[in-house]
Amino acid sequence: MVTRSKRATRHFPERDMQLGMIGLGRMGADMVRRLTKGGQQCIAYDVQPAAVDKLKQEGIAGAASLEDLVAQLQKPRAVWLMVPAAVVDKTLENLVPLLEPGDIVIDGGNSYYHDDIRRSADLAKRQLHYVDVGTSGGVAGRERGYCLMIGGEPEVVKRLEPIFSTLAPGAGAAPATPGRTAGASTADRGFLHCGPQGAGHFVKMVHNGIEYGMMAAYAEGLNILRHADAGKHAREADAETSPLRRPELYQYELNLAEVTEVWRRGSVIGSWLLDLIAGSLVSDADLQSYAGRVSDSGEGRWTVAAAIDEGVPTPVLSAALFARFSSRGDADFANRVLSAMRHDFGGHVEKAATPADGHKS
Amino acid sequence: MVTRSKRATRHFPERDMQLGMIGLGRMGADMVRRLTKGGQQCIAYDVQPAAVDKLKQEGIAGAASLEDLVAQLQKPRAVWLMVPAAVVDKTLENLVPLLEPGDIVIDGGNSYYHDDIRRSADLAKRQLHYVDVGTSGGVAGRERGYCLMIGGEPEVVKRLEPIFSTLAPGAGAAPATPGRTAGASTADRGFLHCGPQGAGHFVKMVHNGIEYGMMAAYAEGLNILRHADAGKHAREADAETSPLRRPELYQYELNLAEVTEVWRRGSVIGSWLLDLIAGSLVSDADLQSYAGRVSDSGEGRWTVAAAIDEGVPTPVLSAALFARFSSRGDADFANRVLSAMRHDFGGHVEKAATPADGHKS
Amino acid sequence: MVTRSKRATRHFPERDMQLGMIGLGRMGADMVRRLTKGGQQCIAYDVQPAAVDKLKQEGIAGAASLEDLVAQLQKPRAVWLMVPAAVVDKTLENLVPLLEPGDIVIDGGNSYYHDDIRRSADLAKRQLHYVDVGTSGGVAGRERGYCLMIGGEPEVVKRLEPIFSTLAPGAGAAPATPGRTAGASTADRGFLHCGPQGAGHFVKMVHNGIEYGMMAAYAEGLNILRHADAGKHAREADAETSPLRRPELYQYELNLAEVTEVWRRGSVIGSWLLDLIAGSLVSDADLQSYAGRVSDSGEGRWTVAAAIDEGVPTPVLSAALFARFSSRGDADFANRVLSAMRHDFGGHVEKAATPADGHKS
Amino acid sequence: MVTRSKRATRHFPERDMQLGMIGLGRMGADMVRRLTKGGQQCIAYDVQPAAVDKLKQEGIAGAASLEDLVAQLQKPRAVWLMVPAAVVDKTLENLVPLLEPGDIVIDGGNSYYHDDIRRSADLAKRQLHYVDVGTSGGVAGRERGYCLMIGGEPEVVKRLEPIFSTLAPGAGAAPATPGRTAGASTADRGFLHCGPQGAGHFVKMVHNGIEYGMMAAYAEGLNILRHADAGKHAREADAETSPLRRPELYQYELNLAEVTEVWRRGSVIGSWLLDLIAGSLVSDADLQSYAGRVSDSGEGRWTVAAAIDEGVPTPVLSAALFARFSSRGDADFANRVLSAMRHDFGGHVEKAATPADGHKS
Repeated sequence: MVTRSKRATRHFPERDMQLGMIGLGRMGADMVRRLTKGGQQCIAYDVQPAAVDKLKQEGIAGAASLEDLVAQLQKPRAVWLMVPAAVVDKTLENLVPLLEPGDIVIDGGNSYYHDDIRRSADLAKRQLHYVDVGTSGGVAGRERGYCLMIGGEPEVVKRLEPIFSTLAPGAGAAPATPGRTAGASTADRGFLHCGPQGAGHFVKMVHNGIEYGMMAAYAEGLNILRHADAGKHAREADAETSPLRRPELYQYELNLAEVTEVWRRGSVIGSWLLDLIAGSLVSDADLQSYAGRVSDSGEGRWTVAAAIDEGVPTPVLSAALFARFSSRGDADFANRVLSAMRHDFGGHVEKAATPADGHKS
Repeated sequence: MVTRSKRATRHFPERDMQLGMIGLGRMGADMVRRLTKGGQQCIAYDVQPAAVDKLKQEGIAGAASLEDLVAQLQKPRAVWLMVPAAVVDKTLENLVPLLEPGDIVIDGGNSYYHDDIRRSADLAKRQLHYVDVGTSGGVAGRERGYCLMIGGEPEVVKRLEPIFSTLAPGAGAAPATPGRTAGASTADRGFLHCGPQGAGHFVKMVHNGIEYGMMAAYAEGLNILRHADAGKHAREADAETSPLRRPELYQYELNLAEVTEVWRRGSVIGSWLLDLIAGSLVSDADLQSYAGRVSDSGEGRWTVAAAIDEGVPTPVLSAALFARFSSRGDADFANRVLSAMRHDFGGHVEKAATPADGHKS
Repeated sequence: MVTRSKRATRHFPERDMQLGMIGLGRMGADMVRRLTKGGQQCIAYDVQPAAVDKLKQEGIAGAASLEDLVAQLQKPRAVWLMVPAAVVDKTLENLVPLLEPGDIVIDGGNSYYHDDIRRSADLAKRQLHYVDVGTSGGVAGRERGYCLMIGGEPEVVKRLEPIFSTLAPGAGAAPATPGRTAGASTADRGFLHCGPQGAGHFVKMVHNGIEYGMMAAYAEGLNILRHADAGKHAREADAETSPLRRPELYQYELNLAEVTEVWRRGSVIGSWLLDLIAGSLVSDADLQSYAGRVSDSGEGRWTVAAAIDEGVPTPVLSAALFARFSSRGDADFANRVLSAMRHDFGGHVEKAATPADGHKS
Repeated sequence: MVTRSKRATRHFPERDMQLGMIGLGRMGADMVRRLTKGGQQCIAYDVQPAAVDKLKQEGIAGAASLEDLVAQLQKPRAVWLMVPAAVVDKTLENLVPLLEPGDIVIDGGNSYYHDDIRRSADLAKRQLHYVDVGTSGGVAGRERGYCLMIGGEPEVVKRLEPIFSTLAPGAGAAPATPGRTAGASTADRGFLHCGPQGAGHFVKMVHNGIEYGMMAAYAEGLNILRHADAGKHAREADAETSPLRRPELYQYELNLAEVTEVWRRGSVIGSWLLDLIAGSLVSDADLQSYAGRVSDSGEGRWTVAAAIDEGVPTPVLSAALFARFSSRGDADFANRVLSAMRHDFGGHVEKAATPADGHKS
């Protein structure tokens, strides 16, 4: 009894559940660890046997194959896919024939919600349930817990609540929102049934779109701060160059590690992302470990595409996305078109390249 | 001794200070309250006697005039201005003649750092010190503390440390940044000497620029989520309208109060701003209290202007700024130019206005 | 013989062709007129009999039904669809069963190139040929000729050359490009086989995306010029408003009709769109005929979607698109989110609406 | 008399004028040539004697020094400066003491209009007149004529009309605008008195801002067309990469020289800039002559700064400006901030650089 009431206050599930996890990469393995620590029973599988072995050494049950995984799970089964979006369909192709009516497939990766809608319809024909879970939290999630945005049939999502509840950070992870009725929904504990199939990944997609925008806001702002000493660096005065009119206004040499640290306390722009930047700058003030080629894994693109479909203006989210494209050289041809035009109408000759951000090196 | 060591751990100042506060609006009055509660001695003044009286009723010393304020302060005096940027110069005009060499004037409002540079040079001629403090924290600052970004002469800033330390949130307001040497600087306690005069407002300016970007990122994302049911609302199919190609993909009716709440725990986009949005949506799910005319108080503009001077690309921060301009109807003539062109080359006739965001009302 | 050689130099076709035109709206009717005047034989059809009658009164052959149209055309038939993108599929549904192997269907409207790829594959199963033609020129095309961007099988496109050549403006419409071999391709005459099916509409789609960007560039610039007198209009000085720091710099009352007119001669930004703006401003200097609700008919959206798929940054084209969305009130909810945040962190109260662009009315 | 009336119809001045030209670079020398050919008398000066000699060999009068130039000019003198914006003040410093009340100084370069306001006030103290002329036309101006946007005192501008009229392209350079009263203003001939001092450069500044936007619109669009074969180039499928979902939609290999050529006739996006691009692509289809580092000479920056002062949204013009900054590597630090964040929250490792735009080389 004592145990039970204690667990209840920790928002742990009433009864434990069994879950098969496919995909033991960065995210999948840590989720298995968090689930196991939280009292859930996991059977872990990955196409790389070494990944399974590693968890086995931590005392977690593993499977040698999809068949083995399915065989070890009690019916109705719950199987969670935590694999790259590009291999979900192939995984399903192999997994689905092994499953039986009533089983649940959960896609916890970063799938496009269009695929959820298609896949859930396909699985429904075999009386299989499909649940999509947008999972945020990154490498810190094992300790902090994962924020879960869920799409699927209500009763199926309800059945999985012990899993979601264990993965999620729990109510204590943030102060209660004023005016909100405690326990009004599971959102207070860090997981939410957003709507029918696809709704979880839709919300996660937009979440990542917002993330791109926030990241760009910090990045642009820090870039301005970094160049606050522009007045100390003479620019040439020729017809190709706009001189800095008032160099005396740009004489600041700011310590960005200190600036981001001070913003962490009491400022309006405090956030977890800011905490991370402050941490990065402690050991690498110039971020020389990075080349600045910024990948995008799809959600930012899909977010803007959805906005366009809906007719919703997203100038900030799209600018953040395009800045990533440009960081990888994808504006190259467009820039050459500009130089060609400048040459042709004004006789402008391109200036030789100087080391990017050179005065700082 | 016990008391002293206790205070030290609370990062309270070694000795108390006296401060004159001019401007008892939203921010100024609460700062006086926080300073007083923290053991500092304040004398409060405002052009509105009622504002002074209110603080007097709370047991705080008040002044009836600038002369009275100056007379009550011990030398060398420290006077903090917390007035709208547009009236700082007028206030200084009246205040400065009353001060004596060695006195300190602090501008804690949202002044343009260009003005700090000019004003500090003017005051230096009279052997007065000038300190600029960018103050973030808003109405929550009284309890949470204020994040302070400071520009000025090192020894003068040092002298004011008891004040800054009391206003700031303190080290406990955020977990320590991994890898950072505790106490390496005052940034850990929520205040930072950023550089010479103007540096404080420069950093605060960019802080607000980032704030605009972050706010826009959330706002755009939530707008996409709100219109995730676009497929339920038929659009006309005529040559003026782009039909929604796949309405079945936009059938979600999302509860934004719940979505923002779940993001508060464990997600990558958690922040104080998100906490506020979640709070707003609890009681006003459609935000009907607002008309969506968004002011800007200058820092966002100055941030982009600084970026342009420095040659730093800020597509996101500028897009956020321009969205505010547009929200106030300032794109109106440009839009009419577009309609005129469409009419003239394509014979397109403007469609009649429908209630903005109408399907939701 | 004389006539023939004269026509040849005018780049007219060697032999005349017969074409069925479906859709006699703004564009379709004028294209029939231009074709007829250029010696091609057209049979015109529209779901609205009145539209057919009108052309009949001009001496052009008409059809009473699709069946009638098909019956009147010699084999192999060539049928041109000039209907809204949204009704192409329905039209094809009725038309295709009436056609025979070897016949050609041309879609000259603003279809999405995705649809071209699908439709051409469907038609190929019935041995029907599909040609997509992006048609630019608007209401002026009847006189100026139409710029044609064509996708399809080479030999089929070749077969239609008399039609394209007659619709296009001809070589004389622009001075020869220096360095270019005259007659190197049909591009010099205003029509181009861009590639396989869909290529025509792909190029036209991007053409329209560019058009959006150009239009927005003019519109934004003119809006700046219009507000060059901002210094004459006092703004309030309160914490919600950023005062104009140097009103003396904004004292110009510019005559936009004159400014756009002068740009038409010798400037770098001369263009046909500029010609149109200059014309609009002659009679309606404030463009009071327009409300500024700017439609978009799809191509701008598809352009940005294609850019995202390709990973090509299009900050300008997307900003132009989103400005149109915003002109229709679609940023409304996002703006309310911003106002809610400002209220909650800073106690900011929204300012009452003032008439948009009010000082000019 | 015959000659005279003929010249009048060519809009040539009633009487010839004398002009001193300082600065014989790209623009200045050609303007002297055009003026001379048009019957105006020029005396040419440059700090580089070689530049003066070159014009002398063409039969144009030259000056050996500023003193010499001033001495050769009849009073009241008219001196035109055509020098880089950054050296105007230094030139005036040397020139002004040599001038006498009633003389006119014309700045025809790309000065910031703020400087015009300041300079004209300074010169007025010496009873010197100041006229600012925004000059568009580039290297083609010698033949095409220059579009002139003029600020200054009405009677002074009027006095210079013979000069402006000769430099401008003349009425024949563009078809008359429908509805416009011929000769209503000099705009029809390609020059315009826009307003008081600074108005000329203000209008030219915005003209260039529009130019940036138009250029970017073309550049982005052509970049999309260039990557229309993206589906032919496999992308890796890993968690860092968003796979192209439907490669079959991106199989076009478009000939951009042909596409830009066809757009020159009858399309909505025809313009002089397009003519130039089409010309560039004839001989250098991949624009390999350019590295894509795009300079900006100030006007684009000032345009956005003016828009911000006025509160006018310019998302397109600013995006075009920032794309230029980025082309020069100035987003570098911001991009590294993004990569650092991605690493810290998601364990994302930057992908190795691949040759920009590589599949095309």
